[in-house]
Amino acid sequence: MKLATLKQGGRDGSLVVVNRALTHCRSVPAIARTLQAALDDWEVCEPQLRQVYEALNSGAFSNPEVFDQAACHSPLPRAYQWADGSAYVNHVELVRRARGAELPAEFWTDPLMYQGGSDSFVGPRDPVRALSVDWGIDLEAEVAVITGDVKMGCSVADAAKSVRLLMLVNDVSLRNLIPNELAKGFGFFQSKPASAFSPVAITPDELGADWADSRVHRPLTVFLNGALFGQPDAGQDMVFNFAQLVAHAAKTRELCAGSIIGSGTVSNKQGGLQGSSIANGGVGYCCIAEVRMYETIETGKAQTPYMQFGDSVRIEMLDAQGASIFGAIDQTVQAYAG
Amino acid sequence: MKLATLKQGGRDGSLVVVNRALTHCRSVPAIARTLQAALDDWEVCEPQLRQVYEALNSGAFSNPEVFDQAACHSPLPRAYQWADGSAYVNHVELVRRARGAELPAEFWTDPLMYQGGSDSFVGPRDPVRALSVDWGIDLEAEVAVITGDVKMGCSVADAAKSVRLLMLVNDVSLRNLIPNELAKGFGFFQSKPASAFSPVAITPDELGADWADSRVHRPLTVFLNGALFGQPDAGQDMVFNFAQLVAHAAKTRELCAGSIIGSGTVSNKQGGLQGSSIANGGVGYCCIAEVRMYETIETGKAQTPYMQFGDSVRIEMLDAQGASIFGAIDQTVQAYAG
Repeated sequence: MKLATLKQGGRDGSLVVVNRALTHCRSVPAIARTLQAALDDWEVCEPQLRQVYEALNSGAFSNPEVFDQAACHSPLPRAYQWADGSAYVNHVELVRRARGAELPAEFWTDPLMYQGGSDSFVGPRDPVRALSVDWGIDLEAEVAVITGDVKMGCSVADAAKSVRLLMLVNDVSLRNLIPNELAKGFGFFQSKPASAFSPVAITPDELGADWADSRVHRPLTVFLNGALFGQPDAGQDMVFNFAQLVAHAAKTRELCAGSIIGSGTVSNKQGGLQGSSIANGGVGYCCIAEVRMYETIETGKAQTPYMQFGDSVRIEMLDAQGASIFGAIDQTVQAYAG
Repeated sequence: MKLATLKQGGRDGSLVVVNRALTHCRSVPAIARTLQAALDDWEVCEPQLRQVYEALNSGAFSNPEVFDQAACHSPLPRAYQWADGSAYVNHVELVRRARGAELPAEFWTDPLMYQGGSDSFVGPRDPVRALSVDWGIDLEAEVAVITGDVKMGCSVADAAKSVRLLMLVNDVSLRNLIPNELAKGFGFFQSKPASAFSPVAITPDELGADWADSRVHRPLTVFLNGALFGQPDAGQDMVFNFAQLVAHAAKTRELCAGSIIGSGTVSNKQGGLQGSSIANGGVGYCCIAEVRMYETIETGKAQTPYMQFGDSVRIEMLDAQGASIFGAIDQTVQAYAG
């Protein structure tokens, strides 16, 4: 099943069911006005939404609404929780190597996770807005899950069952604000501005065999200013799967239905700078920082610039037939004007 | 104006207007069903809610409902943002001194702030639930504001105008989980379980002259197992006021109406262990960690234990006439049973 939120009807938008091909949709106010409302009462709403989905796919509606990804907000325009892991430890290892530090051994067994701001997401086609490019604006292409209610201390097996929906994310990072902020010891805050999510959230069954062991086994494609920049496999090198990330988040507290848990920047282990780029046959990168780390490690100096006003990023995942699964995040960096 | 949320009518509870004396209340479904709904449309709702408040105070309603603090959830049972500052730098300085580290000079000019989990607050009379007391369960008594919509990069003056409501908070901390978690570099996560807020949220004008320069100039009283444990003045030694904290939170992103920004543990500068306790004429402490830091600095070893199952904490603020302003947070530590 595929769900989206149109930018109409208030701050939380209006829930629509989208057909598999992402061409048509249907609003469902009699079932749930918003995605959060559906998640709050999932056992009741899910079967009803699925009936609409099947009717949409089979062409049973005579005049279904045309689905416009550009009319979408993020599936949850605002959420009660957005917690982002860093499950691709290869990425973390590169960060450390670039600054000459060892990766602590426990980073392979204990997930990194930060609490993100969830009050003001932007839509998948909205600009990335910043007051200054000196902040070091970077994309981060990731996968995320939306959970149901989760008990404190839940097992990894129960956490796996709590996954309701999957999305893609652009977890924008302000790289030049990170060092000072992390040095203060309280984690990210100003260095993590508004994230954007894919136009469509899907139930895991949509992925068939590509959803296995709580991982998404498909390449995540990233285009930077129109050129392919990355296509690593999201199922590969994901050291902690989504069930483990959810269980980590719930160790000391309950999670409310609608909690979003992210994978962290997707990153596959590659040989080094030369072979990792798309041009040289590598799988490329899901953030600019990663190529800069290779540059730093091998040449002593990062050279690829962060994003400037006017730069664009497109994040998408295609199925084996080349069809878009979640729709595309497609954002341009713009100066914030209030 | 005083507002509260009763535990009825769904996950977000039901908004009621409470009279100044906290004896009676009135539900207002025709104005707004929930506090978040009122905050989403504050310009429209606020004058209508205030009319009800004035009618309640003047005794204009013939049969007003009796207000029961124990029937309350936190004013926002779940919120889109909970960001907690550490504005009482005295507290931070003690943390540092207890571990033999210098306080960085910029900590006096650049606020510490962490992003907290906001999806599953508990009510002011609900237990603090944990799976183990080995986690080092500590109270943290604080003041917090709820904002309206805030622009990215807003000035401190505009941030001051964005303050809609004030509350008290018990920002429970799991002290024994903090060192490992902060060492990982991503800030607090598992070490910050569900917070509880005061039964009542108030508009700043309720404080009269005690709300000045975006600070609350009243003592915050903390009782631990029935004995007075702290009564520091929340207006004293607050290095960053709420306007500065809100502006800090909004530096690189917009804040959505209903964002909660906390002060951090209230802490007044005192001479040392001997004179700081209530028994010795000091103002005491708003968290157990603070007395433990004095003990560590002066005797080499922390001795006061953290909270055990069955221990209780009461957090309240009284006006000059001894009346409770926000109602009381009153929680007992219990083993989590799912």
